[in-house]
Amino acid sequence: VNTAENTVREFWRLMATNDFASVKQVLAETFVLEWPQTNELIRGPENFARMNSEYPSQGSWSFNIKRLVASATEVVTHVAVTDGTQAAEAISFFQVEGGRVIRLVEYWPESYAPPSNRAHLTEPLHTVAASAA
Amino acid sequence: VNTAENTVREFWRLMATNDFASVKQVLAETFVLEWPQTNELIRGPENFARMNSEYPSQGSWSFNIKRLVASATEVVTHVAVTDGTQAAEAISFFQVEGGRVIRLVEYWPESYAPPSNRAHLTEPLHTVAASAA
Repeated sequence: VNTAENTVREFWRLMATNDFASVKQVLAETFVLEWPQTNELIRGPENFARMNSEYPSQGSWSFNIKRLVASATEVVTHVAVTDGTQAAEAISFFQVEGGRVIRLVEYWPESYAPPSNRAHLTEPLHTVAASAA
Repeated sequence: VNTAENTVREFWRLMATNDFASVKQVLAETFVLEWPQTNELIRGPENFARMNSEYPSQGSWSFNIKRLVASATEVVTHVAVTDGTQAAEAISFFQVEGGRVIRLVEYWPESYAPPSNRAHLTEPLHTVAASAA
């Protein structure tokens, strides 16, 4: 079934091949990527493929889907991205039309220190062993 | 109709009243809030209400839903939050069961400077006039 969810799962499967030109097959001609945090827009499948190919890396990229929420036309994924050295998490809002992604709005949240003024109401989400930094 | 989406819209409507105790009516007894970026977990409706009530503010909080994607049991919102002085954006993953939120995983992405090595592939998402900083 050609659902929006299937299109997005295929997007991440193709990304994981690291052949970023292949991802163009699930992108509409009018595709745009928006990165609100850096106020950047990338227009078109070709620029998207080039950006991924040119991105400085230490090895092959892997993409681990940690969470996926899908409606009929929109899909949100939370993906852990790593090249073995660099690691980041992306939250991606996909708009899908006719089996192709027409718009991707993506966020890259980073870790920061918890404010002490709410420490009496919180507990650690993960134990310290998980992050040896 | 008591959909997950309706529960989440009611959550944000109640948040906007700034009577944070009232939000407890859409939270399950077993509710947890997870903030992965700060490795924090808040357990239970009461701690959630207290955290919001105690959060340092310069005025009433408003919550503007900029994007919402819903499946039958999960909802993602992108919300702009401000008290007139502080402003931030939250991406919230809600798990809903029986008309109540059982789990909320929330991210707070922040702005940062775009890397120059991809400038040849990007254009500004918004014109400079929008951010006078």
